[in-house]
Amino acid sequence: VERPRHQGMAKNTYMRWRLPLVCLLWEVAMIVLFGVFVRFSPEADAHWEEEKREMNLTSDIENDFYFRYPSFQDVHVMIFVGFGFLMTFLKRYGFGAVGFNFLLAAFGIQWALLMQGWFHSFKSGKILIGVENLINADFCVGSVCIAFGAILGKTSPIQLLVMTLFQVTLFAVNEYILLNLLHVKDAGGSMTIHTFGAYFGLTVTRILYRPNLEQCKDKQGSVYHSDLFAMIGTLYLWMYWPSFNSAISDHGDAQHRAAINTYCSLAACVLTTMAFSSMLQKKGKLDMVHIQNATLAGGVAVGTSAEMMLTPYGSLIVGFICGIVSTVGYVYLTPFLESRLHIQDTCGIHNLHAMPGLIGGIVGAITAAAATEDVYGKEGFIKAFDFTGAYQTRTPSVQGGFQAAGIVVSLLIAFAGGALVGAILKLPIWGDAAAENCFEDDIYWEVPEDEESDAYHMHNPDKPASP
Amino acid sequence: VERPRHQGMAKNTYMRWRLPLVCLLWEVAMIVLFGVFVRFSPEADAHWEEEKREMNLTSDIENDFYFRYPSFQDVHVMIFVGFGFLMTFLKRYGFGAVGFNFLLAAFGIQWALLMQGWFHSFKSGKILIGVENLINADFCVGSVCIAFGAILGKTSPIQLLVMTLFQVTLFAVNEYILLNLLHVKDAGGSMTIHTFGAYFGLTVTRILYRPNLEQCKDKQGSVYHSDLFAMIGTLYLWMYWPSFNSAISDHGDAQHRAAINTYCSLAACVLTTMAFSSMLQKKGKLDMVHIQNATLAGGVAVGTSAEMMLTPYGSLIVGFICGIVSTVGYVYLTPFLESRLHIQDTCGIHNLHAMPGLIGGIVGAITAAAATEDVYGKEGFIKAFDFTGAYQTRTPSVQGGFQAAGIVVSLLIAFAGGALVGAILKLPIWGDAAAENCFEDDIYWEVPEDEESDAYHMHNPDKPASP
Amino acid sequence: VERPRHQGMAKNTYMRWRLPLVCLLWEVAMIVLFGVFVRFSPEADAHWEEEKREMNLTSDIENDFYFRYPSFQDVHVMIFVGFGFLMTFLKRYGFGAVGFNFLLAAFGIQWALLMQGWFHSFKSGKILIGVENLINADFCVGSVCIAFGAILGKTSPIQLLVMTLFQVTLFAVNEYILLNLLHVKDAGGSMTIHTFGAYFGLTVTRILYRPNLEQCKDKQGSVYHSDLFAMIGTLYLWMYWPSFNSAISDHGDAQHRAAINTYCSLAACVLTTMAFSSMLQKKGKLDMVHIQNATLAGGVAVGTSAEMMLTPYGSLIVGFICGIVSTVGYVYLTPFLESRLHIQDTCGIHNLHAMPGLIGGIVGAITAAAATEDVYGKEGFIKAFDFTGAYQTRTPSVQGGFQAAGIVVSLLIAFAGGALVGAILKLPIWGDAAAENCFEDDIYWEVPEDEESDAYHMHNPDKPASP
Repeated sequence: VERPRHQGMAKNTYMRWRLPLVCLLWEVAMIVLFGVFVRFSPEADAHWEEEKREMNLTSDIENDFYFRYPSFQDVHVMIFVGFGFLMTFLKRYGFGAVGFNFLLAAFGIQWALLMQGWFHSFKSGKILIGVENLINADFCVGSVCIAFGAILGKTSPIQLLVMTLFQVTLFAVNEYILLNLLHVKDAGGSMTIHTFGAYFGLTVTRILYRPNLEQCKDKQGSVYHSDLFAMIGTLYLWMYWPSFNSAISDHGDAQHRAAINTYCSLAACVLTTMAFSSMLQKKGKLDMVHIQNATLAGGVAVGTSAEMMLTPYGSLIVGFICGIVSTVGYVYLTPFLESRLHIQDTCGIHNLHAMPGLIGGIVGAITAAAATEDVYGKEGFIKAFDFTGAYQTRTPSVQGGFQAAGIVVSLLIAFAGGALVGAILKLPIWGDAAAENCFEDDIYWEVPEDEESDAYHMHNPDKPASP
Repeated sequence: VERPRHQGMAKNTYMRWRLPLVCLLWEVAMIVLFGVFVRFSPEADAHWEEEKREMNLTSDIENDFYFRYPSFQDVHVMIFVGFGFLMTFLKRYGFGAVGFNFLLAAFGIQWALLMQGWFHSFKSGKILIGVENLINADFCVGSVCIAFGAILGKTSPIQLLVMTLFQVTLFAVNEYILLNLLHVKDAGGSMTIHTFGAYFGLTVTRILYRPNLEQCKDKQGSVYHSDLFAMIGTLYLWMYWPSFNSAISDHGDAQHRAAINTYCSLAACVLTTMAFSSMLQKKGKLDMVHIQNATLAGGVAVGTSAEMMLTPYGSLIVGFICGIVSTVGYVYLTPFLESRLHIQDTCGIHNLHAMPGLIGGIVGAITAAAATEDVYGKEGFIKAFDFTGAYQTRTPSVQGGFQAAGIVVSLLIAFAGGALVGAILKLPIWGDAAAENCFEDDIYWEVPEDEESDAYHMHNPDKPASP
Repeated sequence: VERPRHQGMAKNTYMRWRLPLVCLLWEVAMIVLFGVFVRFSPEADAHWEEEKREMNLTSDIENDFYFRYPSFQDVHVMIFVGFGFLMTFLKRYGFGAVGFNFLLAAFGIQWALLMQGWFHSFKSGKILIGVENLINADFCVGSVCIAFGAILGKTSPIQLLVMTLFQVTLFAVNEYILLNLLHVKDAGGSMTIHTFGAYFGLTVTRILYRPNLEQCKDKQGSVYHSDLFAMIGTLYLWMYWPSFNSAISDHGDAQHRAAINTYCSLAACVLTTMAFSSMLQKKGKLDMVHIQNATLAGGVAVGTSAEMMLTPYGSLIVGFICGIVSTVGYVYLTPFLESRLHIQDTCGIHNLHAMPGLIGGIVGAITAAAATEDVYGKEGFIKAFDFTGAYQTRTPSVQGGFQAAGIVVSLLIAFAGGALVGAILKLPIWGDAAAENCFEDDIYWEVPEDEESDAYHMHNPDKPASP
């Protein structure tokens, strides 16, 4: 009982050989590369007893696993359930949202373990991985999930895998430049994850511009239950964001502080999102799109500064501003970007990740520049900004300058990389769907026939599936 | 394609200026108060290295963050996903359930940080917050979520914010009286959270009694998928309740014990809920309302005693009883309260929180009164009840008496406070809906048109939306 | 408005007295047995201060609670939300999936605490329980949830409780033989949980074979939203599996390593599942059944070996293979088992748990046999395999042999136990439904009337409920 389709601009979306080939070949490549390079870090290796002795650790609880594993699991939930379900708001793209997010993230974390490993955990020819690497791999993939939000519903799974391959690579390069060359702090990834991921995705979707997309405007909406599914994603992102921003901070006060700052920022953000969602709508009603997305902007925007002495009220101010910026963005900026700049941004990542990411980078630069030994304590000051070794003479204001440079670098790599990858994805070999078949699961998925829609079709034989 | 509505008793539910005004003004107030008062606790402050030295701590793992953060995240999930989704059972109030819960909790945790901070974490003019404060703020808001359950579907978001403001304040006062003046133990909040929250909410809904509510009886039911969404809430509350009851207990055995007792109580509660759900229905079928709610009563009822030496079998007995009490309450007491006492309790919080909360207070009093040095050990006895300083001569039976007094105080403040707040909420300025528009999302939310309901309307042009 | 039903083979499914009787009697039995036997372990007992002194522990953080509680909560979510929601894929059996899973697991964990306690935590006449016992009880119940998957939709809640009683008992016996008599390693339960649980369930469903089940073939499918609900289950199982496989491993490196290996295996598994799902379907589309299930096989298959030095690339290889085996199983083996061997396996547990469980046992045996002091270090080698006391002369290859023997024992007990329990469940006293009423919630549940299905019935008065 396949529905007849308009096949005016029919494209070949047949995945049967292409998708398996890519999946299997790339996974084999992963196995080979892992075999050559990846081993356990000393804290995960069976030689740990000796390691403990060498490092004078008195207890197994000193293993980094116990400092970071709970946060790792929260981050893991954000990537797979958070991002996956956040994107199920579309009425007929839930399988693609959750399923393709699952696919690209599962591939991406493997590739990220390698890429980030080569840059950061490479010792005597081996990448030594522990729980912190898992978190960083999830973080890296987070930036791909963000970019996926811009092109949701318009790409084939192969395109997503190709994008993941390139984006993870570029992410690792950008991250290396920021963290190692510029010696920038960005534990929650305002710059490396959000700014980079969002502007990368926006550039890709600009290159993949589809002029006829308004043909399926009706499918770009939600239905009642799909909005509730999306709220599962929203809430898990919102609740676990304190773990996200604190997951790889220094042990002790830095993790503690990052969680508190993020908690505060997010709380404030909800209030201003609700305020502006109601205010900007003629009837004064709340819009689920804003609640699902803009409430999260506060977490993005303290990504750089949360582990610093931003203070709870500083966090509230950042959250306050970002709820407004993001909601206003959904109402005014998204339509403008689409109509004037031809940027079709399905999930509005410009409002949720791009602008708040930029704000986050700036807030981080200011907070760093404003740091004093008085506020941090002598030891705390050095520890917080890692002003040791080659950097022991760096001053807060210089650090602020480097932080700002980090934003610029992230933007440049995002634009250049996005343009390159967009061009690659435009090749007519990846099996993307025609404009009129976008936002529709049954191009790539076996979709069950619903009783309800049967009833519907039965009585409306002349009407298309989605009115 | 707005549906025509019966506008017989039309009220002004227009939120466009009122809701934004309240949200923005109050959030600004939060920022100012946080700016004046709130700073990091020593364990979250960058001076932590010095603090460690002073306190002779050898490792960062001794930071309270690592003792409590996993439990904090579980509690956070309970407040936002647990309570939020538990209330999505109504067929057309899912947005309001999840969304308004989100709004009131996000505001409430900020105000709770301040109120509880002034009472408990105030040092040299500043409130010093750490992870335990975040948990306590979530706890405090939990009592508001409970009260929300009684008035679900009948109030405007502004009313909810006003209620949150007052209820958090009263919660903090009541908590101070119990914990500090009466020196009562209540780590899982049977008295402070459940008894107080539930009787407060029931008093509010009594004052807000709507005589014509049976007009929308049809909308007070569930549909198949809304019951499944609600089960997400139920299960997260059920699974994470051991974290709830142990989150702020003393480090070590107390947290460990509280988790075990709660686990046991909840398991027993499921069995008796299922038994009575089937037994009390003529056809012997299980009722989702009971499964969604009464299965949780066992967690409520060990809230006070879980950290004490209640023992696993004691916990089973408490859970056994509460599953029965709660289920019987849903079948017999809720209709009685509505018809005779005019208490319209949408979610049946009387059965899930009020009665089990009272039982929890009583069980706590008995368990405390029955404590002996033999069972607790000499040191454990003093530590468990904090019989130090001014309280070092208090005996278990006296403690039991004070515990019982705590129940009475909680009830009195709940009734008085609920009456006051109910009266305030009755003012005709908050934008609540008319009786016939209750339990309907599209008063306050932009609701997407569903295909299915379109199909429905198409063929039943003369029938109202919800048959 | 009860629908008329075909009552050709009508059976008595009336639960009103039978279900309450079983629930209440058994719960009373639990209370009595807990009262006689169950007490707190030293780490959860109020005497902990003395215990600390005796064991020379310097900090409360050394309490096992802090090593295992986060993993416990993740496992808890897997059992109740993971398994519960994974099985909601059926269009009209969501209440039964989540609700009966809740019931059997809540009973099962209590009985498992006793059974496992007698075998493993019995000291001076008492079972002393701590957080590790809670995890093990959840594990034990996991094997029942697996078996439930085979008979989903075809049994009454009483049958499920009876099965739980027997299966938990047999699980504990089998576990004792493996862990204590054979001295086998199986921290993630490839053999004890998955192999045992799955072949037990498959044997039960074989004995309960229903020849007329194709009558309700239509109800064995999913609808769009039920597939999304099921994905919640899938993702929570997938994300938290690293916690599952590491939850009861030794402190330190073993837990750390088990989490990393599982993370890797699961990632690889997603890629090959997607590949084969597309490849084995003529139209090349992805099938939700595969994504929901086969993506998890990688976690099952490293259950034994994850805490060993399997290495990340070893894990990728195992995941790679299992995604293929499991997906191929769904496409070819499940129909074969049903038509030829009369094994009606509702959820396809043969593909998700049985085969990957066997693979997991074999991988574990090989990994153990291949262990060397070089790879593990002298101390690590002894610690990893617990080659102390009576086992200090056991060699890796002998260990490998015992591991293999563990698989055989698990299979034998599963087959024999499954046959016995299947025969018991076949007695006509447990209230199971007739074939034509299978996979239908409204036999045992009060099901709300949906607007949508009303609309449906209204216009199709002559058609059965599910077309």
